[in-house]
Amino acid sequence: MATEEIKELPKSWAMIGGDGPQSYSQNSSYQKGVVDASKEMVTEGIKDKLDFKSLAFDSSNDTFRIADFGCAVGPNTFFAVENIIKAVEHKHHAQFNNSPPLAFQVFFNDVPTNDFNTLFKTLHPNRKYLAAGLPGTFYGRLLPKSTLHFACSSYCLQWLSKVPKEVVDSKSPAWNKGSIQCDGLKKEVTKAYSAQFQSDMNTFLNARAQEIVGGGLMVIIMAGLPDGIIMSQAGVGMYYELLGSCIVDMAKLGEISEEKVDSFNLPLYYSSSTEIEEIIKVNGNFSIEIMDSLSHQIWQTSKKSNIEVSVSGGRAVFQGLLEEHFASEAVEKIFEHFAKKLADNFSIFDGAAHEHIDHFILLKRHFN
Amino acid sequence: MATEEIKELPKSWAMIGGDGPQSYSQNSSYQKGVVDASKEMVTEGIKDKLDFKSLAFDSSNDTFRIADFGCAVGPNTFFAVENIIKAVEHKHHAQFNNSPPLAFQVFFNDVPTNDFNTLFKTLHPNRKYLAAGLPGTFYGRLLPKSTLHFACSSYCLQWLSKVPKEVVDSKSPAWNKGSIQCDGLKKEVTKAYSAQFQSDMNTFLNARAQEIVGGGLMVIIMAGLPDGIIMSQAGVGMYYELLGSCIVDMAKLGEISEEKVDSFNLPLYYSSSTEIEEIIKVNGNFSIEIMDSLSHQIWQTSKKSNIEVSVSGGRAVFQGLLEEHFASEAVEKIFEHFAKKLADNFSIFDGAAHEHIDHFILLKRHFN
Repeated sequence: MATEEIKELPKSWAMIGGDGPQSYSQNSSYQKGVVDASKEMVTEGIKDKLDFKSLAFDSSNDTFRIADFGCAVGPNTFFAVENIIKAVEHKHHAQFNNSPPLAFQVFFNDVPTNDFNTLFKTLHPNRKYLAAGLPGTFYGRLLPKSTLHFACSSYCLQWLSKVPKEVVDSKSPAWNKGSIQCDGLKKEVTKAYSAQFQSDMNTFLNARAQEIVGGGLMVIIMAGLPDGIIMSQAGVGMYYELLGSCIVDMAKLGEISEEKVDSFNLPLYYSSSTEIEEIIKVNGNFSIEIMDSLSHQIWQTSKKSNIEVSVSGGRAVFQGLLEEHFASEAVEKIFEHFAKKLADNFSIFDGAAHEHIDHFILLKRHFN
Repeated sequence: MATEEIKELPKSWAMIGGDGPQSYSQNSSYQKGVVDASKEMVTEGIKDKLDFKSLAFDSSNDTFRIADFGCAVGPNTFFAVENIIKAVEHKHHAQFNNSPPLAFQVFFNDVPTNDFNTLFKTLHPNRKYLAAGLPGTFYGRLLPKSTLHFACSSYCLQWLSKVPKEVVDSKSPAWNKGSIQCDGLKKEVTKAYSAQFQSDMNTFLNARAQEIVGGGLMVIIMAGLPDGIIMSQAGVGMYYELLGSCIVDMAKLGEISEEKVDSFNLPLYYSSSTEIEEIIKVNGNFSIEIMDSLSHQIWQTSKKSNIEVSVSGGRAVFQGLLEEHFASEAVEKIFEHFAKKLADNFSIFDGAAHEHIDHFILLKRHFN
């Protein structure tokens, strides 16, 4: 039974709601870029890998069920879902020329503190699917057994269920003093983060394995690193380092206690494709049908807009997380410092030896 | 296919969200009384009328699906759902002594402007069911074909999908000038309201008939009137009349235009059991297993708390509706007038010849 596994993530994990100037909905152009870049790959993946003839699809029930795990507030999730529906309709038509059209039900999942009100109000009134919200962490069961035909999760699984406790424990050899991320420079820190990632991914795959029917597909898009590259070598790692240095600066100025700074780390882990592949194979519930990486334009053309996008995008994602740990006035100041520091140091990104990548993974649920 | 029927009700139909002093969640003790009074009847109804042996229940899928249509923000919906689950578990155990326990999935439905954020945040973390939100009007399809085993709707179906347009049309013989409700005194007005109710109920029953499996049950609790009694004779009708008179007073004082007042009516209809029975029989998708009425204590013991409860309860329900039609400052004043007028006239309720009733209806979906 699923429900003993239901655990909720802390409040901070949700993006900024609403559609105001600081909202995730207005500051997720990077994530939209990911959706756009993956669109074609999802369409092709469904065309090549979805097989209605072998899918455990109950023909007495005409409804094809889709879930987006970690949907935030839209509109990205709507674009992603509409693209999937179009491709599934195409494939269904290609395999069963004269059969009646499929009906669709879409489950939008995110943590209970996500702004579902905004999500629901912005659902398209003429949408071609039945919509439902699914409040709860995706690191646990959310749907009944064998009821899902297609799952997707876009840009979420680099978020861990929690910060590994060793990295904020001053008595542990994995204590990550002076950094807020897994920068890849300290072996023990990397080990702790990697173990947490492995455990979380496994929990995610096991929950989805129960929900997805045999032959059902799952597309995972997540931030990662090229094999052999560590965070401190990548532009995104430098970005987090700069954010961390603003927090350290504030401790030096006495505006935040040092202890508060030392006990803060980001629950983020950028994995390599080798690492993910290993986890999926050991888990054993899914076959890897496609494993690729997405390339896309991160930065806008003008430097000024780059800086603005960097600050507001970071704020939409990290503000809640920071406010859970620090006072909200302190968080306000952190972002002020950050905007200035980014402007002064923006050229470091030109010199970044590497960029992070986005993993594109298409999995198929084994038949039991 | 369901989705062409998806229509959204205007914003006003939602109760006041959050859990502040004016919220529905803090001002729904009357509705909670309805839930309490019906608890035993639901338990008995499930015991006597739910038959797993004839229910179109897929034994390969262990999940029993429940939906609450018009759930608002809780906590009443949680009590109702937990009571249903307990009774269903009991019956299942009684019929299949040694079978593994059922899993449950519960769909919480209300209009997209309902405060789902509050609903989701207050879901019990150790609940025994998978939860999903279902945004959309229940006067339309919300779930896939034949997937629901138990539906309930508590104190919602007296709300029409819209005010019948004739009653706010000064050129129509059904124009309801001087009143904001179907008081039962003008034949044409009653006819227009009754026709709207009939059409809405039929739409509701048809949508649910598609969603509920053969042998599945539906409990409907809704406000109504004893046979032969009209609204102006019942305490609740006097209550609405008093609210209406405050609005008329404000027009006389020039604070609201007369035209605004004349174009406002409540989208509420209190039906008789004879009327509902006829609609259900003509619809033909369900058999009536139980048709009863609930009695319960409406008023608190002290007059002072009665008046407070009457004003705050009315406000939680009607504020949004009024604000859609009148300016919000005007609505503020309406409730000030109303509080005073209720205090001055509270004794009229002692003299009310009749009380409204709450219909309790248990339906069973026919097998096709």
